[in-house]
Amino acid sequence: MPDARRIHSGSALPREAFPRADAARVERAAIALARELGDSKVILEPEALVAHAGDESEQDPVLPDLAVLASSPEDVATTLRLASLHEVPVTPRAAGTGKSGGAVPVCGGIALSVLGMRQIEEIDVREQLAVVGPGVILKDLHDAVEAEGLFYPPDPNSLASCALGGNLAENAGGPRAFKYGVTRDYTLGLEVVTASGERLAVGRRTRKGVTGYDLTALLVGSEGTLAVTTRATVRLLRRPEATVTLLAYFSGIVDAMRAVEAIVASGLVPRCIEVLDERCVTAIRGEGGPLDDRAAALVILECDGSTSEVERQMAEVGERATDGGALEVLVAQSAAQRERLWEARRQLSYVTRRMARWKISEDVVVPRMQLAKLVGEVRRIGEREGVTMLSYGHAGDGNLHVNLLWDDEEHVPRVERALDALFRSVVALGGTLSGEHGIGTSKAQYLPLEQGDGLIELQRRMKAAFDPRGILNPGKIFPRGRHRSC
Amino acid sequence: MPDARRIHSGSALPREAFPRADAARVERAAIALARELGDSKVILEPEALVAHAGDESEQDPVLPDLAVLASSPEDVATTLRLASLHEVPVTPRAAGTGKSGGAVPVCGGIALSVLGMRQIEEIDVREQLAVVGPGVILKDLHDAVEAEGLFYPPDPNSLASCALGGNLAENAGGPRAFKYGVTRDYTLGLEVVTASGERLAVGRRTRKGVTGYDLTALLVGSEGTLAVTTRATVRLLRRPEATVTLLAYFSGIVDAMRAVEAIVASGLVPRCIEVLDERCVTAIRGEGGPLDDRAAALVILECDGSTSEVERQMAEVGERATDGGALEVLVAQSAAQRERLWEARRQLSYVTRRMARWKISEDVVVPRMQLAKLVGEVRRIGEREGVTMLSYGHAGDGNLHVNLLWDDEEHVPRVERALDALFRSVVALGGTLSGEHGIGTSKAQYLPLEQGDGLIELQRRMKAAFDPRGILNPGKIFPRGRHRSC
Repeated sequence: MPDARRIHSGSALPREAFPRADAARVERAAIALARELGDSKVILEPEALVAHAGDESEQDPVLPDLAVLASSPEDVATTLRLASLHEVPVTPRAAGTGKSGGAVPVCGGIALSVLGMRQIEEIDVREQLAVVGPGVILKDLHDAVEAEGLFYPPDPNSLASCALGGNLAENAGGPRAFKYGVTRDYTLGLEVVTASGERLAVGRRTRKGVTGYDLTALLVGSEGTLAVTTRATVRLLRRPEATVTLLAYFSGIVDAMRAVEAIVASGLVPRCIEVLDERCVTAIRGEGGPLDDRAAALVILECDGSTSEVERQMAEVGERATDGGALEVLVAQSAAQRERLWEARRQLSYVTRRMARWKISEDVVVPRMQLAKLVGEVRRIGEREGVTMLSYGHAGDGNLHVNLLWDDEEHVPRVERALDALFRSVVALGGTLSGEHGIGTSKAQYLPLEQGDGLIELQRRMKAAFDPRGILNPGKIFPRGRHRSC
Repeated sequence: MPDARRIHSGSALPREAFPRADAARVERAAIALARELGDSKVILEPEALVAHAGDESEQDPVLPDLAVLASSPEDVATTLRLASLHEVPVTPRAAGTGKSGGAVPVCGGIALSVLGMRQIEEIDVREQLAVVGPGVILKDLHDAVEAEGLFYPPDPNSLASCALGGNLAENAGGPRAFKYGVTRDYTLGLEVVTASGERLAVGRRTRKGVTGYDLTALLVGSEGTLAVTTRATVRLLRRPEATVTLLAYFSGIVDAMRAVEAIVASGLVPRCIEVLDERCVTAIRGEGGPLDDRAAALVILECDGSTSEVERQMAEVGERATDGGALEVLVAQSAAQRERLWEARRQLSYVTRRMARWKISEDVVVPRMQLAKLVGEVRRIGEREGVTMLSYGHAGDGNLHVNLLWDDEEHVPRVERALDALFRSVVALGGTLSGEHGIGTSKAQYLPLEQGDGLIELQRRMKAAFDPRGILNPGKIFPRGRHRSC
């Protein structure tokens, strides 16, 4: 009765059920795993498996048949070797904060948790690098390296709860990506286990290196479909001497984007340029946030660097924002003021979740000059389909988190039409389906909107080169079709 | 008589001859190509083929059977489709300035020149990107984007003659990589043709994107073995407002590296940190360069940024260099002074070539803190084997160009022992065989020193996923053995 193990609590969007892993194979794998790893690392009780069933996307959680709590690379290798032998699907997971279903074991089988490997093994101040386990919580890494005067830039919204393993799998970004780039840009080397259980070290500890194919760059962002990371060497920067945050109110998104453009065109590189549309501003105001009544769009700008440089930048950014039509520009300089400001931004994801019974959070990217056009398009689509849609995100990168909200289950067909229209607009504007959340199960069916058959087939062949039996994180990235896995 | 087509003019190192492409197949492919592309694009005369036989490495040039002068993506697609059909090897090439044999058609067959696709198709100032053909000369791109107030950081030594297609194939770096990174860091998207002749667009125009596997990152640095690039979208920065170059003399390499370390540890990020050892200093002095008599090591430092920032950095860098034991620190501020200084550095490659009958230029990387140790190791190896060895390179990145020089053909076994010892030292110090030149044919036999069998086998499977018939740039990257291609 595989369907009985499906938990219905997601977005109300109809998701195709995946074929369930073969029960007899699962049983053989479970016995072998318990024998080799010990009973304490192999979880079989349904109540305990719930913690390994979902993520923070709208993908319905699915109970795995068992979970393995790996505490070492050897455990991961043993799990994959036995899963491969018995042909049982394995879904790797770290903190489960992903936004595209990547950690959901849609075919059942084994959920392989690497959260126990949470050691910061090394911080080398002189070489400016750290060696970390995949279960390290991002905030812990931030704190540890900052205490040494160093800096790890990626900062996804979930930084207090997400783990490095997930960040690597999804190539996590965050507001600071505008200046500093994303997780891939800071990953020097990886130790991974392939689907057959083979341990490989790819990449390097050095700043540069072109020996062989860049598997490190390929594996980052491969959503756990090619290999499981057991250790990462990440590049660090020096911690910036000073940081200042500005908040600018605008009477509308078009003004806001014009000001952003003026700032970027002048050669200034704030580390963050976040934009929030009118509905977001209303939502924050509804939560009691102290916002100017006239504000119908909001831009958060953050500059860092040497103290003198930051002061110069802050003055110039403020000037450009005002020239660009800002109603008001506020400056947060103390750490506490800055934290309050960012907290409001981070809460947005949760605030909007409370605005309706169901919510889908999208993560599209367009060339920056097309962002105002996309926001207008979002408004038109929402009006046409009668779906509440709001937008916020990383304006500097053209990366917009479009939220769709609805209360009535009957509205699902409208939501689906709106999503389809959104993705088509994004692709028509020269954009891409995902900026930082990944494709997972959430957007797999839309992949052919952006990529042709030839490109998708090539990626399937690459997947097969890593994982010939197709046991690793099946059901992710690729649209269903004649290539059924599980 | 395939061996008759081999040209002997290289490094005197014995290189294994590759099996030559099948003559009957080549003939069928040549006829089909001439029919579809026209005679003017298909070169068959040996005198004209010499220009497509070699690169700037020590790999002996090898005459291809024919060359195709592609002037469009369609030409490239036609060539690969027909080469695939007739199973004839294809070696893509752009300007042929590579340093590892990547563009040498070691099996004969078709040399596919993309140098005719030299159009800068677009410079989008607002999105800060350019769209370029693979035949664009790097210096032309630099000049064109700088005229628009923009900046493309990669700057390999050969920038006046190398082309973007080769830069992409080898993931070219250059002195500015310390601050700005390498070619991969600036490549947003690629249009490529696969071995079967299929045209694919990978990557994006947007700053961010995580849709599917990052084939762009994988293809950059894949040395023309996976696909042929026909168009690239590269990310640009704003041109820095000001640049200043400092030259610091030291009494030895250990002092020089200690000063470099003090500069980096203080949080300063010069865009370049170049180091030259005593033998290099002697060589430049021999060319009439005005160098302090006491100098036995030399560091070139370059800072850029806003005018005020650069002045602050220059003062601090100079101070740290002096504290670190610099005998003298000179500052070049005018463009002409700076150009003269860099010209001396760029000439080093040619100056050293004149120092002996044969030269091999290596390109190893170690963690920066191990660089002084590596330079010492190089000296010991040279003394032990009686081979002249000198070192210069990108100290900030730990990337050292080690040159081996000899006049007597009898010394070849010594040179081979010295090379082997060098690579073993590099790997033992936690380094990598190549920082920017690639593996090509020059270092293919050494790949197993750094990478295990499993990792090499995985890369061969990836190669097969792209190029199942093995026609694309055979003989490169992978060590010879049971997997013979051509």
